Amino acid sequence: MGLSMARNLLLAGHEVSVYNRTRDKAEALKGDGARIAGSPAEAAHGSDAVLSMLADDQAVADVTFGEQGIAAGLSPGAAHISQSTISLAMARKLAEEHAKSRQIYLSAPVFGRPEAAAAKKLIVVAAGDGKAVARFQPVFEAIGRQTFVAGEEAWQANAVKVGGNFMIVSVIEAFGEAFAMMRKAGIEPHLFLDVMNELFASPLYKNYGGSVVGGVFEPAGFVLKLGLKDVGLVLEASKELTVPMPFASILRDHCLSAMANGQAEMDLSSLALVAARNAGLPVPGKS
Amino acid sequence: MGLSMARNLLLAGHEVSVYNRTRDKAEALKGDGARIAGSPAEAAHGSDAVLSMLADDQAVADVTFGEQGIAAGLSPGAAHISQSTISLAMARKLAEEHAKSRQIYLSAPVFGRPEAAAAKKLIVVAAGDGKAVARFQPVFEAIGRQTFVAGEEAWQANAVKVGGNFMIVSVIEAFGEAFAMMRKAGIEPHLFLDVMNELFASPLYKNYGGSVVGGVFEPAGFVLKLGLKDVGLVLEASKELTVPMPFASILRDHCLSAMANGQAEMDLSSLALVAARNAGLPVPGKS
Amino acid sequence: MGLSMARNLLLAGHEVSVYNRTRDKAEALKGDGARIAGSPAEAAHGSDAVLSMLADDQAVADVTFGEQGIAAGLSPGAAHISQSTISLAMARKLAEEHAKSRQIYLSAPVFGRPEAAAAKKLIVVAAGDGKAVARFQPVFEAIGRQTFVAGEEAWQANAVKVGGNFMIVSVIEAFGEAFAMMRKAGIEPHLFLDVMNELFASPLYKNYGGSVVGGVFEPAGFVLKLGLKDVGLVLEASKELTVPMPFASILRDHCLSAMANGQAEMDLSSLALVAARNAGLPVPGKS
Amino acid sequence: MGLSMARNLLLAGHEVSVYNRTRDKAEALKGDGARIAGSPAEAAHGSDAVLSMLADDQAVADVTFGEQGIAAGLSPGAAHISQSTISLAMARKLAEEHAKSRQIYLSAPVFGRPEAAAAKKLIVVAAGDGKAVARFQPVFEAIGRQTFVAGEEAWQANAVKVGGNFMIVSVIEAFGEAFAMMRKAGIEPHLFLDVMNELFASPLYKNYGGSVVGGVFEPAGFVLKLGLKDVGLVLEASKELTVPMPFASILRDHCLSAMANGQAEMDLSSLALVAARNAGLPVPGKS
Repeated sequence: MGLSMARNLLLAGHEVSVYNRTRDKAEALKGDGARIAGSPAEAAHGSDAVLSMLADDQAVADVTFGEQGIAAGLSPGAAHISQSTISLAMARKLAEEHAKSRQIYLSAPVFGRPEAAAAKKLIVVAAGDGKAVARFQPVFEAIGRQTFVAGEEAWQANAVKVGGNFMIVSVIEAFGEAFAMMRKAGIEPHLFLDVMNELFASPLYKNYGGSVVGGVFEPAGFVLKLGLKDVGLVLEASKELTVPMPFASILRDHCLSAMANGQAEMDLSSLALVAARNAGLPVPGKS
Repeated sequence: MGLSMARNLLLAGHEVSVYNRTRDKAEALKGDGARIAGSPAEAAHGSDAVLSMLADDQAVADVTFGEQGIAAGLSPGAAHISQSTISLAMARKLAEEHAKSRQIYLSAPVFGRPEAAAAKKLIVVAAGDGKAVARFQPVFEAIGRQTFVAGEEAWQANAVKVGGNFMIVSVIEAFGEAFAMMRKAGIEPHLFLDVMNELFASPLYKNYGGSVVGGVFEPAGFVLKLGLKDVGLVLEASKELTVPMPFASILRDHCLSAMANGQAEMDLSSLALVAARNAGLPVPGKS
Repeated sequence: MGLSMARNLLLAGHEVSVYNRTRDKAEALKGDGARIAGSPAEAAHGSDAVLSMLADDQAVADVTFGEQGIAAGLSPGAAHISQSTISLAMARKLAEEHAKSRQIYLSAPVFGRPEAAAAKKLIVVAAGDGKAVARFQPVFEAIGRQTFVAGEEAWQANAVKVGGNFMIVSVIEAFGEAFAMMRKAGIEPHLFLDVMNELFASPLYKNYGGSVVGGVFEPAGFVLKLGLKDVGLVLEASKELTVPMPFASILRDHCLSAMANGQAEMDLSSLALVAARNAGLPVPGKS
Repeated sequence: MGLSMARNLLLAGHEVSVYNRTRDKAEALKGDGARIAGSPAEAAHGSDAVLSMLADDQAVADVTFGEQGIAAGLSPGAAHISQSTISLAMARKLAEEHAKSRQIYLSAPVFGRPEAAAAKKLIVVAAGDGKAVARFQPVFEAIGRQTFVAGEEAWQANAVKVGGNFMIVSVIEAFGEAFAMMRKAGIEPHLFLDVMNELFASPLYKNYGGSVVGGVFEPAGFVLKLGLKDVGLVLEASKELTVPMPFASILRDHCLSAMANGQAEMDLSSLALVAARNAGLPVPGKS
């Protein structure tokens, strides 16, 4: 993701320093005109903004607050724009800590798979101080097809991202249950998928529904254990905001069941196997 | 629904006799060239096929097996094409009973609101004897934009319809939970809906999400108590086919909660109020 | 059940005519002083009250409304006391129909296994016209250890019975989930059961928990498919009374999963295998 | 809790130093022969064992690892016996850290309300090194009515405690749903409770069922927000051990709904109000 985003920033004419723990990955951008930084602090030094795209809360905290972290290198008035899928609590902590050094913090998580990042088709959801969001609009435009502004608090963008992930995983579960019914009714799953594609006319349904019906869950585009992480963020947010979300609870229980039955490294769409197994249908996977 | 479908059949050049319990509704089609029948039997008499579009199992049974019912008027080799949303069990019973009189029975339920019916944009899912389905293909083409064939058993079309309804109501529930989260996060629901529309790019999401956000649940396009009926058909099918469907169970519990809190005659999209109420949010409705 | 109850009525000094579809079963009571009836109507003829104990709604309807049924034999002012576990709707129908013939109808379902019936230790929950309930108090005392009066409407006794069954099956599910956790924590299930027995000090926990831990589900004391029937009655009542019951919904889904995985004829306590299977634990059963 | 436990230790003839953040609470034990310590470290200094009984993970970590914490005062070969309801992860961390200083760590959480602690009727579940558990058996006997040994890993005792809490809160939820049904059926809740008491014959059912029926949720014996904490520990354990627990998920969602509807400081038994509210029943509480 980060690689494609950096390349698109360069293509849009921005000066870009890149840092990656695996230096080789960063080096790949040299030909595109990127400067290679030896640490997050070095990448931040003298920059208007640092964009971070990392796996989880811990990784963002490490890269931000470490001795050679972003916060150590960033000038007052410059911004840390976090694009990772992180918890609302971590976004709030980042905002607080950067504010102490008069640095700006924005959350700007994205929707879209790596292919979308490469094609500059990400959906960006930004939040934080309105003037700062406006100031960095060209950055968002360089990496995505559309930018939405969620609010004046950075963590609100993360709430939208977490809510969107919830909507997506719910579709996979619904497909899983419906396909289990179709299979037990002797109906060709492809037929049901065709009807749903005609009904919903959504590329997202087409992709996820197709993955479930295809039944090839390895190698994974997005591993199930990361799906469980995302569902965990939904539940964390639901607790913090005091919002019961029974669909999310089922997503969690079914992700756990998938994990317990050997699907951790399979694609998230293999979540549908849980409904199939519960219906007594034969499923591929560990034996 | 039935009115629009009959009109489209006439427009396509078919000869049509219409019967409605409320004769006035049938009379409305006289100008379009329809013959008015005094009973289902009379409508069936001499026809190649009778299409029925009714509220529920009981209504279909009454119209089919009554003294002046379809079965009494239909010739051997002619067909009863049931387009209602009925249970798998009722479809099987209809198939059995018509077979006894050497009549053909097909299920051909449709997806689409009345506007779609008027615009000839219904999605038709047909099932039953393959030769009969092929024979009546022109009928399906006259009323819908596309026809899918679910299988050789008529009830399989009803399983697809029931499964599709499950997918739709699941979207409303997911929206309800996500919007409750957004509201408690101080995020404008419209903003979240815009992001979801960009993400899913589905007209169906746009419509249902828009209804939920709009918050005007009366007058209803499709009343919640009929939504509960549809969810009941899902659960009936899930039991019969022995398929646990935890999402469907939640849909049922939330429809019941909506009913118990005075929403029976509100639009089905008001299902989202249940999640809001559970999150302690103020909701419109009975006080 | 019926046999033990009839014997206890005889022991208490009542005159008893017995009818069973399998006449041999009835004959077994001859030595205890019972008169053998050739039909429900004959058993009802001249009696103050007819007690029926049958498998389900259909069986009660057949025995009551058939040509040689209870209603045909019962005198005005005499009572039909239904002790079966039936739906609230069926209880209402029985009350209405008997009222038409000026016969009394009471519901008096019982809690207790066959051993409890033999030992006169059933718990009786009676409902219906107060004077009639009082009049037949000696009958209830003859078969049970305690009688509770649920209300003036016969079906209210069935609601209590259905609610009690819900409480019991919920315990089995809770045990199933907790034991799955213990097993994955490497904790001896017996140890957890011992703690729970000390904590709840309930013979019912001891029995059901012991069955789950014992892991011998065949031959069954009470088959799982009948448990699903009972859960179905809970859900029917919850719909009719408009009460969402998410625990009951899970019981239904897990009973279905058990059925789909070959446990229909196993003991109801094998419901716990569903939680174990979902946790990826090895379970006995069909391979 | 701690006060009663310390008093029982003194009564059993043990020498006891007590520490409490609120020194006055500790002083209350002076008359019973306790020595008052100025810090956890001081209480630990020279003792064979330190028993800690605190609110949550954070409190235990503070008291153990602070500068004047237990770990700083405890001699090699002496033991920290944690009786708090904490996470499995925290128990593992405590075991690891104490091991580094060649100190013993045991988990020995308890079941029982303060009254049970005062009456020496707690149920103790101990785990950790077998020899150490045996060595401190007299301590457990001094405070409880029975001690169970869960395993050789300290955290296993916490798993049993967490599992037991799950069983208890499940009973409250089941009661909530059943009582909602009874109320809508016009059945006196006391009647249903009487039947359940006869059926389950469990003091715990009597207490919790009685609290729900009583409907007086303030002042609280055990506040609902602490119940949510306990349910959170169940879910944490279920995730770590990869065990889907759908009942626990519902407990979480309903605790959240209760919190969102102003019940945080009410008694945990007010969880039953969620089922009542979902059934459209009038409930006491915030207006």
